Amino acid sequence: MTTVGILGGGQLARMLALSGAPLGLRFLVMDTEADACAGQFAPLLVGDYRDEKALAEFASKVDVTTFDFENVPAESAQWLSERVPVFPNPRALAIAQDRLAEKTLFRELGIPVPDFAAVATREELDAALARVGVPCILKTRRLGYDGKGQFRIRALADADAAWDALGAQADKVGLIVEAFVPFQRELSVVAVRGRDGEFRSWPLTENWHVDGVLSASLAPAQADDALAEAAIAHARKLAEKIDYVGVFALELFCKDGVLLANEMAPRVHNSGHWTIEGSETSQFQNHLRAVLGLPLGDTRMLGHACMLNWIGAMPDAAAVLGEAGGHWHDYGKLPRAGRKVGHATLRADSREELAASLQRVGVALQRQPQVEPVIERLR
Amino acid sequence: MTTVGILGGGQLARMLALSGAPLGLRFLVMDTEADACAGQFAPLLVGDYRDEKALAEFASKVDVTTFDFENVPAESAQWLSERVPVFPNPRALAIAQDRLAEKTLFRELGIPVPDFAAVATREELDAALARVGVPCILKTRRLGYDGKGQFRIRALADADAAWDALGAQADKVGLIVEAFVPFQRELSVVAVRGRDGEFRSWPLTENWHVDGVLSASLAPAQADDALAEAAIAHARKLAEKIDYVGVFALELFCKDGVLLANEMAPRVHNSGHWTIEGSETSQFQNHLRAVLGLPLGDTRMLGHACMLNWIGAMPDAAAVLGEAGGHWHDYGKLPRAGRKVGHATLRADSREELAASLQRVGVALQRQPQVEPVIERLR
Repeated sequence: MTTVGILGGGQLARMLALSGAPLGLRFLVMDTEADACAGQFAPLLVGDYRDEKALAEFASKVDVTTFDFENVPAESAQWLSERVPVFPNPRALAIAQDRLAEKTLFRELGIPVPDFAAVATREELDAALARVGVPCILKTRRLGYDGKGQFRIRALADADAAWDALGAQADKVGLIVEAFVPFQRELSVVAVRGRDGEFRSWPLTENWHVDGVLSASLAPAQADDALAEAAIAHARKLAEKIDYVGVFALELFCKDGVLLANEMAPRVHNSGHWTIEGSETSQFQNHLRAVLGLPLGDTRMLGHACMLNWIGAMPDAAAVLGEAGGHWHDYGKLPRAGRKVGHATLRADSREELAASLQRVGVALQRQPQVEPVIERLR
Repeated sequence: MTTVGILGGGQLARMLALSGAPLGLRFLVMDTEADACAGQFAPLLVGDYRDEKALAEFASKVDVTTFDFENVPAESAQWLSERVPVFPNPRALAIAQDRLAEKTLFRELGIPVPDFAAVATREELDAALARVGVPCILKTRRLGYDGKGQFRIRALADADAAWDALGAQADKVGLIVEAFVPFQRELSVVAVRGRDGEFRSWPLTENWHVDGVLSASLAPAQADDALAEAAIAHARKLAEKIDYVGVFALELFCKDGVLLANEMAPRVHNSGHWTIEGSETSQFQNHLRAVLGLPLGDTRMLGHACMLNWIGAMPDAAAVLGEAGGHWHDYGKLPRAGRKVGHATLRADSREELAASLQRVGVALQRQPQVEPVIERLR
């Protein structure tokens, strides 16, 4: 009986456990919160990730460790990796935790990125703005996600306000200025790499964000083969460079047909949730297969799929469940503003059917703004 | 937060819980065994189904109750149904528990059945044999499954041996003699009926048994439309008659193109396990949707699927996981002779691909006898 330990007990850990049960796996989830939603379907160890006693208990009970979020302290991952196999490896995690290290690596690998510059002081911010230009975005190097820890600088005159907002973070987690890319589309590659180096990618996915949080994903992205192949080649190069094992996502901007890497997420990813019903093998099961050294599953699509995120509170399920290809995912969380509480996936054999299904769901749930950009893309 | 109670904590309860989690459901499973495998992914209440104290605790914690096996004492189901909604209803459960009541109902509904006769005494056995003829099978009316509680009578001279084997059961659970049908094929309809009476069926499935235990299932069955429609019409008539709510299976024999009903199982069914990956909506999720009064999911197939049962011990997973459409289901049980410990489902877009996949798996696992009849049917 193999027990998989997961640091972090949110919806990703929950879906990993649900997806791994058929492989005969047991799970142990560690989270700082006693009501972490993965705990509804897997044993939960409540503790701080920096608490060596809790980590030691965790390590003693699991055969392999993985993550449900990337902000596990790098030292904790390292400490664990000396006691139990940890995938992805702590170095990959450390790179993905640091926007500066990540973007530097992208550049080294020949993966185009928006211009960027490190910022440690108020003076360096001015220098960075002069070099990168405006508009740009000041971000924390670490611990940012879903648009948190970011300040958009529209003109040089915004520099003071940006520093007021984030300057205190410069000593703690570091800052970076990134050129603002007026992109037309946001894409992601969700891919998996096995312990033996085998690499597989799901089809390219297009994503729509609202207020910095993913709102909808469409797969396959409506993109020509060359673009999709280039994006997947970037992801592969990256995974091979850092000896990545497991599922990860590479987020990209697309501007005038050119791809620019935004960031990588060293874990199963929200833009890959559609794989549960839309692909032969879900990202969750393939992550576990990779981590355990099992053969990777087929990543081919079954038709067309669109994932809609539910933020704050769950809508009524009936409209989605009434769709032929409608699938519901309630994470079992209490409602809270800005919180990802669930998602729906609509699957259809054709683009036209998927658009029609989105249209009906959008109307029924009064969420036309969420579905309309996707419908437009499908036309 | 809705909590679904499940009486019985085997693999069916386990797969119900895994499939129901995305609906935001919580589960409470009751079983007599502390190591019931559903308990690995859902809270488990250990107790006897006849223990009113345990049942009362169970009832106080759940919003609705369903079953993972049909041999829950009818009185317990009735007792629970006076306290909490129970689906399927206890009357449907009682009929399905009793081969005599079930076959009598089939006959009433105009669903053809093999000839049968009730047996209460040694003398009645002789009378039944005279009427039904040999070969035939003496079975317990209740508590039989997977070929247990059955004695095959090849000639009248076997009557004494049959009575020696099962006569003691006559007073306890009753006996029935059923004509032996030299059928060519075994088929099953797996279907679901909602609280509002909506009825949906998955495509007709063909099954192969070894020693009375399901070995393989193929969907869709290679059968002409008229046969499939007749089988599904029988299932619908039955479900409507007993106001059935949830998923059930109707097992049928096919002899010279004629269908004969064998039995109905008032629960999700082993011959419907392929629906997890082979259909838009699995039998497990549709059972829960039905029980909760939610819209039923689409039962269309995604290509062709074959389920292979693993009995006694799990084979090595790699051969199945290495197939493009290979899916693994380890129930997390300890190995034991005759025990259903897991299954695999192979899915493919065409019959030819499915046959080739089965061939490879059969060779790799040295289980050619298990896959060969299915491959033959696909040719």
